[in-house]
Order: sequence, then C-alpha cells, then structure tokens
Amino acid sequence: MAPTSRSIDLNADLGEGVGDDAAMLTLVTSANIACGFHAGTPSVLLRTCRDAVAAGVRIGAQVSYPDLEGFGRRFMDIAHDDLVADVLYQIGALRSLAESVGGTVDFVKPHGALYNTVVHHREQARAVVDAARTAALPLMCLPGSEAQRQAGAAGISVITEAFADRGYTPEGTLVPRTEPGAVLIDPEHVAQRVVRFVQTGQIVAVDGTVLDVAADSVCLHGDTPGAVEHARRVRAALAAASVDVRAR
Amino acid sequence: MAPTSRSIDLNADLGEGVGDDAAMLTLVTSANIACGFHAGTPSVLLRTCRDAVAAGVRIGAQVSYPDLEGFGRRFMDIAHDDLVADVLYQIGALRSLAESVGGTVDFVKPHGALYNTVVHHREQARAVVDAARTAALPLMCLPGSEAQRQAGAAGISVITEAFADRGYTPEGTLVPRTEPGAVLIDPEHVAQRVVRFVQTGQIVAVDGTVLDVAADSVCLHGDTPGAVEHARRVRAALAAASVDVRAR
Amino acid sequence: MAPTSRSIDLNADLGEGVGDDAAMLTLVTSANIACGFHAGTPSVLLRTCRDAVAAGVRIGAQVSYPDLEGFGRRFMDIAHDDLVADVLYQIGALRSLAESVGGTVDFVKPHGALYNTVVHHREQARAVVDAARTAALPLMCLPGSEAQRQAGAAGISVITEAFADRGYTPEGTLVPRTEPGAVLIDPEHVAQRVVRFVQTGQIVAVDGTVLDVAADSVCLHGDTPGAVEHARRVRAALAAASVDVRAR
Amino acid sequence: MAPTSRSIDLNADLGEGVGDDAAMLTLVTSANIACGFHAGTPSVLLRTCRDAVAAGVRIGAQVSYPDLEGFGRRFMDIAHDDLVADVLYQIGALRSLAESVGGTVDFVKPHGALYNTVVHHREQARAVVDAARTAALPLMCLPGSEAQRQAGAAGISVITEAFADRGYTPEGTLVPRTEPGAVLIDPEHVAQRVVRFVQTGQIVAVDGTVLDVAADSVCLHGDTPGAVEHARRVRAALAAASVDVRAR
Repeated sequence: MAPTSRSIDLNADLGEGVGDDAAMLTLVTSANIACGFHAGTPSVLLRTCRDAVAAGVRIGAQVSYPDLEGFGRRFMDIAHDDLVADVLYQIGALRSLAESVGGTVDFVKPHGALYNTVVHHREQARAVVDAARTAALPLMCLPGSEAQRQAGAAGISVITEAFADRGYTPEGTLVPRTEPGAVLIDPEHVAQRVVRFVQTGQIVAVDGTVLDVAADSVCLHGDTPGAVEHARRVRAALAAASVDVRAR
Repeated sequence: MAPTSRSIDLNADLGEGVGDDAAMLTLVTSANIACGFHAGTPSVLLRTCRDAVAAGVRIGAQVSYPDLEGFGRRFMDIAHDDLVADVLYQIGALRSLAESVGGTVDFVKPHGALYNTVVHHREQARAVVDAARTAALPLMCLPGSEAQRQAGAAGISVITEAFADRGYTPEGTLVPRTEPGAVLIDPEHVAQRVVRFVQTGQIVAVDGTVLDVAADSVCLHGDTPGAVEHARRVRAALAAASVDVRAR
Repeated sequence: MAPTSRSIDLNADLGEGVGDDAAMLTLVTSANIACGFHAGTPSVLLRTCRDAVAAGVRIGAQVSYPDLEGFGRRFMDIAHDDLVADVLYQIGALRSLAESVGGTVDFVKPHGALYNTVVHHREQARAVVDAARTAALPLMCLPGSEAQRQAGAAGISVITEAFADRGYTPEGTLVPRTEPGAVLIDPEHVAQRVVRFVQTGQIVAVDGTVLDVAADSVCLHGDTPGAVEHARRVRAALAAASVDVRAR
Repeated sequence: MAPTSRSIDLNADLGEGVGDDAAMLTLVTSANIACGFHAGTPSVLLRTCRDAVAAGVRIGAQVSYPDLEGFGRRFMDIAHDDLVADVLYQIGALRSLAESVGGTVDFVKPHGALYNTVVHHREQARAVVDAARTAALPLMCLPGSEAQRQAGAAGISVITEAFADRGYTPEGTLVPRTEPGAVLIDPEHVAQRVVRFVQTGQIVAVDGTVLDVAADSVCLHGDTPGAVEHARRVRAALAAASVDVRAR
C-alpha cells in the first residue's frame, strides 16, 4: 500500500468460538475463518461462512498447525510435504463450507505459531507458499517476511498486513506476547494509530522509532477482549478521516 | 446394473493406514479414500490420492462420523445441520488434496456406522444427500436404502454397491459383524460369488435365499486381512469370465 | 436427602473453557471438572484443580463421550468395555492432575449426552458404574435413573442431584433442551426454587405438578450465561434461609 | 549398569496399534505402553495393560506430545507448565487403566520427539522430570542426557537404556532416522550387539568407535517391521550367553 492510499482492508480472526463474531462481521471487510486445526468445528465454520457471506465480508482460510490443545500457538516441527498436506486439507475444507453458502475463499492466512514461523523459517514458508499456489490463493502475511519473499518468487499474490493493537519492535517485527508493550489496550490510541498508518504508512515502534510499513490490510484480532470496541473506534476514526474501508 | 451387464466397478477403502493400499490400487477401479474423521492424516491422504491418480483409479470421499477413537464404527446422534457440515468439510478437504495431484473426487461414500445408519435413518440420510447434492457428487450407497431413496428424490446420482465378502440376510441387508456369517473368508468362494453376481445379478443369502441385487460397484474392503488376496481372486475370476472391470 | 435436611451441596461444571470458573469456585462446594474428552486441555484442568483445592471445593471427574466437536452432547453407541476404558482413562487423568496439587477426585459425574443416556440405557449405565466401582468413587447421577439403580446393586455410593435452573417434566425427568421451559432464566425464581427444594424436597414441574425429589446436591450449571448470577442468588437465598452449604 | 552385569531388562513400545504386541509381550520384560497422545485408544491401552499384567511384564507410561497426526514424532514447543500437565494427564490415565487390571505403572518413558528433545532441551527435560517426580516414578531415558542429569538433581530414579537396533554416533547419541545407519536390519547382528553390550558395556558406533555405554535396559522397538524377529534372536542369544533377562 502506498502511503497516499485512502482505502484499507480490515481483517479479524473469526470462527474460533471466542469473541463476538457477529459484531466483528459488521466492522471488518475480511474474515480469517478458522479451519478446525486450532479451533472451530465444521458446523461453527459453516455458520461463520454463512454470516460472512451475508455481511459481504471477504473470507480467508486461517490455516494452523494441527494443535487444538494449544490453539495453534506452539511451534511444531513439521516437514515440508506434511505441512503442505495440512494446509491444503484446511483450505479445501473451508472452501467446501464457504461455497455451500454461496461464498468463496479468497486468501490464505497462517494462524498463530505458524504465522510467526513463516516470518523466518524457510522450509515452512515454502510449504505454505506451495499450498497457496496449488490452491491458487493469495497469501496474507507480514511485510518483509520470508513468506512474502517466497510468495513473490513463486509468483503468487500477497496481502501484507499491519497490526492495529500490537506493539512493533524498531526492526518492524511484532513485540512477542510475553514482553511488555506486546498488546495495545487503549481503543483511542489503537484507532489513531490505524488512521496515521493508513494516511502516512507510518507506525511508531515501542521505542519511539517511526517505521514505514507497507500493508494492504490491518488486523484487528477478533479474539482479544476489547476486539469489538477497538474495531468500532477504528471504523469511526477511519470514517472521520474519510478513509474508504473495503476488501480490495 | 442390469443382470446382463458385463462390466463392473470394484471399490475398496483406502488411506486408512491399515492394509496394503499399493496392492489394492492395482486391483480396484474406485478408491474410497478416508477423509481424516475416522482415519487418515492429511499427508497419508495426499499420498493415497497421488497413488490413486497414478494408478488411474477413481477417487471417492469416504466420509465418516468424527470418531478417530472408534474408527467411525459407532453410531453418533448428530443433528442434520451439523452432519451436513461434517460431510462437506471432509469432501472439501479430500478434494483439495486430490486436485493438488491432478485428480478429482468423483463420488461420496459414507463409512462404517454412518454407512449403516443412512440405510434407515431419515434425518442422517437427508444430511448426507444434502451434502452430496451441494458438492455435486454422486452418492455410493446400499441398494434399497433410505439414502438411495432420498438421493433419487433429490435428483442426485447414486452408485449402488454389492459386497463381495459380506453375508446377506434374506431381506438383502448385510449380516451385522457381530453375527456368524457376517464376513466371508474363502477367497475362491468370494470370487465365484462376485462373478455370479455380475453375470446374473444374484447373491445367495446366509439362509440360501437367492436375492436379486442391482449394484453398480462391488466393495472389496481394503481393510480386512485377506483383502488383497480376495481382490486378486476376484479380478482373476472376472477376467476368466470376460467381465470388463472399470469405474463407469 | 430427607425433606427436613438443612444442608446441601452445590455443584457446577468447570474446566470447560467457558464461563467464569473463578467466580463459580467462590459459590459452589463441588466442582465437576472436565477431563479432556468434551472440553478442557491438561493445563486448563490442572489450573482448575489447583483453584478448586485453593477454594476448598470438592472435585469430581466429569467424564464424557470422546466428542470434542460436539462438546459431549451427542449420544454415541459405545460398547460396554470401550466405555469402561474411556471412563477409567478420564478419571485417572484428572486424578493425576488433582493429586499433583494436593487434591483428590471424590466422585464421578457423567457429562452431557452420557449423563442423559445412563438415565435409561442399561449397558452404558453398567459401564459407568463398573468404572466408578473400579475407581472406588461415588457416582453423581439423577435420582431414579438406571445409573442409580445399578450403582445401588453394585454397592457403590451415589450422590443424587437436582437441577436449579432446569425445568422438570411431571415424571420427574428434565425437560429436553430443545423444548420450551427447559432452562429457567430468572435468577430470583431459580433461587427460591432451590430454597424450597432444600427445605421441603419439592420441585414444581412445568405443568404445575409438585414433585418430591430426593437429592444430595444441586447443580448450578457453570456453563450457562447467567450461571454466576444464579449461583450468587442461590447462595444468598440459602444463607437467608439458614441453610448450610457444604459438600459433606 | 556395570559392564560385568549378567542381567538386563528388555523394553519395547506397545499399545500403539502397530506391530505384534502379543508376540512382543512374550519376549520383553518391560512394556512402554502408549497413553493416547501419539497413539492408542483407551480400550486398546486397557487391553494392552491386561496382557502385560498376564505376561508378568513391567508397565511404563510412554508419554508423548499431543500429536496423533504425527505419531508424536515432531518437536512441539510446549511451555514447562503445559508439558507437566500433559505428562501428568497421560501417566494418570494409564495408571487408572493398569490398576483396573491389577497392574501398576512403574516408570515413565518419553516417546518419539519428546524423547529426543529431553536429551538436550532444559525446559522440557525439567517438565518431564517434574512430572515424574510428582507421580513418584522413575524416568527411563538416554544415558548422558539432560533428562538424566535433571532427574539426578531432583533425586528421582532413572532407568537408562541402550538401543538394540539403532546406530550410535561416536558421541554416543543415536544416528537420526533420516541418516544412513540409523536403523540396524540384520537380526543376528542386532542380537550379537546386545550380548556384547550386556557382557562388556560396549557398543560399536557407526564409524567403528567403541563406546562405553551404561544402561539398565535395552530397547527393542516394538513398532519396527522386524521387531518380533529381532526380539526372538536377542532373547535366544542372551539365553545362550546365560544372561538373565528381567525387569529389575
């Protein structure tokens, strides 16, 4: 996204059985819907797809390590071919559900530990990219990540994203959740930060460094306690700034 | 299948992590590949799809109750909408894997307890039929079953099947596995039975009653101990009888 | 429990990852802690056991069908020996966690569909009773149920229970959740109902019939939306009526 | 074990639904029984415990990462407290089953990737040791491993083991399964190697280095294709060498 862009996509994680999906669907333009490997039963996922279609919200397959116990938040050392199979399985499962209610799956987004791993892990990034290419889907990922680089080399589209409520390191990566400043609490702060980012492409890191971030979408994290309130403030602030919110 | 037919499809259950899938793929013309709910990890399913495509064997989605512990062999009282979601999820997952290796999923076959349940259970039969219709796939089922009736009413194709190695009751249903005569052991007996069925449409029930059975495919049960030997004898006997073995 | 009893046990379902377990632990005297088959990861269960021990709340193993997808709310047709193994596995797992934090498992309570099934299903009631006897634990169950009868015949203790927020049929069974009147909403109504039950042994059924119910414990359902508020009112009403609340 | 020892324990992995458990139980003196996290349903585990008790074979809890899909063979980055809970859960589950058939769980052995990880990973080794100490069980592990060191520091017993059919590096660790020489095929070679080890404490590494290995038990790997044949030859060779085979 160029700094002068005046439109942005807002995305959130849905179908995880936590948070207020119905409210979030009125506020975001892309829904990263779980695929059953870290959360979500088929019937919950089907209902979430139906609601997303009804709300006109774009659907992405939020693919995960097979780790229901850990909500997909723990690194798993899965070999390339096995991970490709895991990701394809999940994409296909969600596609089938989405298409049964008149929708489509329009992108792939890794969840949790898999998301963080493909920022730097070559073999797993390659597996996710291979699966996205096979499924002919764009990959949503962190700008500057190994996944983005490999997606570019493989000729598949990427949807880069910034995080509304996560602290950034001076290097442009996310502050780990185990460290102070990882998650922003104040809704007004979050909202103004998103507006600044959309208008200027700038995000202020935890140490005050001003980062230039190129991203097509802003993640609002459907599963955090204040998610709905944050999303409402972000939408209101973007409207006040005359920013168009849409999926693409 | 009319009694005068001289061609038949042979199907077997594969991708379940039991039995000799490689050998069975040289003998059958349709593979009912597990979808992960009763057996099969994504990487095993992907490999099985690849092998089926290489062998020119038609692929079906063998959908199950979500019961890994019980290998899908135990009735579960799942409501219609939830079962539709379960079945669609599995079909989509396998489709994604099959398509990634140049194949297609060409039919749906319920597994184990779900197979037996849709012989008579209206709500679950309707759920399976609804899922098959949504996925635009023919349904493989027992001739005379509730599933077949509902598929006909819904306007979707059925692939009826006979069982090479299972005993039949005088009513034309399968002898339950807990009763004597449920499973036929002798390969030559199994082979001659299949030839007689293909040539005449007749199967002899456990009490000697001669049944007229209309079926498009014969199930060879990839997961039983003598499955490969049975399949070899059946193929040889059909060849000797000049019966053409093909998927459709 | 004789109608003249002036003490009662209050129990609730905990460790399921839904509801406010911390609040409920200040209000109940028995915690039915999930065992991982319908909900609850080992670390959540361990933490719940630790909290229950700290709160001085008695721990029971809330055993379930192996049905994470359906939250244990769907009947599964599991054979006796397999169900005994399932129940023993769960009891042992929770016992190990409880004992690691200085607690004990003091009873077994079936969850969801298994609870309802053992009200009438002989084979499954026998399996649950066999497991409880093997584990030397009392069984919490519905008064008048097949499980209670078999527990009596097997010589194991039972803890019978009444339901604070569930409607009763004139026959003394619970109104199914799919029917009107199944769940009571008004906290004051629930509280007065519990007080009346403890003082008189009477519960009014949905059609006005006054039932005599003998129960050692009252279930407060930790996973319903108003559970904490209901529990607070019940505790307050019981205190006002000078009823002693304890696990015994 | 001192090099002059003339008795040895033989252990194998059982209850995994692969291999010939019945045959192995006639050949080993310790059974590492799966606990459901990488393999094994409660009813299979119960039956395996019953058979082990009948055969007079010592039972160990073979604890794993929660990874059914990967058979526990993939590293998972699980935090200390969560891993303690996972291990305690599994130990308790197996204990309950073993005790129901008159047996006991007498040691803990990590499986697959967890086994390899606690050779060097401090936090996870500590978690496994903490769980073993809490459960008051000896820990079976690789001599020289981090797990052994921490077990010693924590004051819990260890049962060190050597591997009959695995290649050793000159450093005394196992050759990874992905490298040549990882698994020994020839039964006679395996048998003679075990005899030499029991008589002298020596094992020859892949490069010819003669290693001094102190181990209380020899693992025979119940899940490999030639496991039963290997075990038979080992027993015969040990008998010929007048070595006493027993659990302790």
